[in-house]
Amino acid sequence: MVLLYKYDSESNLNNQKKFDDLKQLVVSDLKSVDDLIKDKIKNKINYIPKVAGHLVKNGGKRIRPMICLACAKLTNYKGKKHINLSACIEFIHAATLFHDDVIDESEKRRGLKTANNIWGNKSSVLVGDFLLSKSFELMTEVENIKILKILSKTSSIIIEGEILQMLSNRNIATTEDEYLNIIKSKTAQLFATSSKINSYLTSDPNKYKNALDSFGMNVGIAFQLIDDLLDYKAIEKDLGKMVGDDFKEGKITLPIILALRRSSYNEKIFWKKTIQDGQIGPGDFEKACSILKKREILDDIYLRAKHYGAIAKDALGIFKNSKEKKILLNIVNFVIERNF
Amino acid sequence: MVLLYKYDSESNLNNQKKFDDLKQLVVSDLKSVDDLIKDKIKNKINYIPKVAGHLVKNGGKRIRPMICLACAKLTNYKGKKHINLSACIEFIHAATLFHDDVIDESEKRRGLKTANNIWGNKSSVLVGDFLLSKSFELMTEVENIKILKILSKTSSIIIEGEILQMLSNRNIATTEDEYLNIIKSKTAQLFATSSKINSYLTSDPNKYKNALDSFGMNVGIAFQLIDDLLDYKAIEKDLGKMVGDDFKEGKITLPIILALRRSSYNEKIFWKKTIQDGQIGPGDFEKACSILKKREILDDIYLRAKHYGAIAKDALGIFKNSKEKKILLNIVNFVIERNF
Repeated sequence: MVLLYKYDSESNLNNQKKFDDLKQLVVSDLKSVDDLIKDKIKNKINYIPKVAGHLVKNGGKRIRPMICLACAKLTNYKGKKHINLSACIEFIHAATLFHDDVIDESEKRRGLKTANNIWGNKSSVLVGDFLLSKSFELMTEVENIKILKILSKTSSIIIEGEILQMLSNRNIATTEDEYLNIIKSKTAQLFATSSKINSYLTSDPNKYKNALDSFGMNVGIAFQLIDDLLDYKAIEKDLGKMVGDDFKEGKITLPIILALRRSSYNEKIFWKKTIQDGQIGPGDFEKACSILKKREILDDIYLRAKHYGAIAKDALGIFKNSKEKKILLNIVNFVIERNF
Repeated sequence: MVLLYKYDSESNLNNQKKFDDLKQLVVSDLKSVDDLIKDKIKNKINYIPKVAGHLVKNGGKRIRPMICLACAKLTNYKGKKHINLSACIEFIHAATLFHDDVIDESEKRRGLKTANNIWGNKSSVLVGDFLLSKSFELMTEVENIKILKILSKTSSIIIEGEILQMLSNRNIATTEDEYLNIIKSKTAQLFATSSKINSYLTSDPNKYKNALDSFGMNVGIAFQLIDDLLDYKAIEKDLGKMVGDDFKEGKITLPIILALRRSSYNEKIFWKKTIQDGQIGPGDFEKACSILKKREILDDIYLRAKHYGAIAKDALGIFKNSKEKKILLNIVNFVIERNF
């Protein structure tokens, strides 16, 4: 079997170009989104923009709002409400990151110390709450009940996914299907909403709704599959967060699920000790990575991600060819081939 | 000076009657609210209703939804949307309680172990998020953009108040005015919204809006003044939460603010040691209570609460006399005279 999952500087460069093309497509809208975000975290309590800004302003890929903005172009929307929706989506995402970092006791994200690491868990809980509330305030400005229903429902689904993930922690009986349900809720749903929400800004919501939903959902699944793979694969500098965090926390992601099913008797004992019982010693993470490599698990997860990516691409089939469509098709490849 | 703040079994009995009258007034609507709450926390993930239900179903006074329901009667509203709004308000309140208990590391609430004490902080963060998201879903069902804007703004203001409170922790320079700003945001705003939101269900929102806002805001201030007083006064059995928690956490409430201004040199050293530096030894809480008594601080807070209560009562002056009005006027007294 050929090792499909590989990096070299040339493919990295090509991949970065796909991302840059998307950024270029939405550059002026993205500037408006960033300005709106900065405006909305302004507060008479200086502490709020300081802590919120640590995460919200220090970038991240902004891939969800960019997909939202690109889909607005794809559906030929000419108004300004997609700016508001994109900011709202980034606020929901940022709120979950603040709370995730508390729950996972993470030390680093996006190459920086996490907010909970700097300001403590109390701040992260409250600033996460603040961003979630602000996301709802932002939604109401769009003054469209259908959109409000979708976004508030999305927020509930994300949290259900987070709860499911918490409950599956260290549970080595978790199946691939259960894992898929978790990542659909906690990650892919927001990608789906980022895409399809635009259809409700058009005069005929039903025309594009299902196609955009399917596009976003499947990109989102691929995105999380790769995210979970990178935790066993990436160079820490590229990923911006600590590699091996999932392993240390006993988070049940697909690498572990497949490893448990493909391992030898002795390897299974190793997984039970480390993942189920949380007994991790020096060299255990390296051993975990070497088992994943030996059992060709990362290669197969890459194939799984390509499968969902293919569905996402076909979902855009109903749109006529355009620059936007081409960029969105390429972004599916970016999501799968990225190393950060 | 006469000790104004006293309990005896007769006044307790009279006070309980005021509360029971309110409950009786809204009994059938409150049943609908409870049913809606139970329905909305139902989930395919059994864990969610188990944890959420621990707090949401195990009562509390339900004073915010009851005030909302009573104000609906006062404004002569005949529809069903006030049920939804009351449930939404209770969800926002419950969400903040889940997160408060994480932030304050509380062990008991409403006479029971706190959720974070039983299921851990992660659960409390996520179930709080779930309830906050559900509150937004509930709002959207009312399909009224103005109401959505008020409720989502209220949620942001509450969290700003929580952040201000966190920042004032152990800061003995906090003034009474700063404290008032904190309790207006974190507590009184939701009382104000519970009352005034009903005016947006009537054909002429402006007619009652300001009166109900003023009623709720001032009842809410009185409510929190007494809450903070009870932490130095109540019998633990009555309050249902641990007495002395605020003292242990170095929370800057009005008893402490006044004590710092009225104490002798030696007493000031005691407050700095316990509140500012968090060095609390055996007998220190009892000593704190005895200083508060000696300096007549609880009596004066009772007077402060009566002041805001008086404003709340006068705010209802624009309504003609009715059973509902009488009960709402009495509930102001209940809020001030309660011992739980």
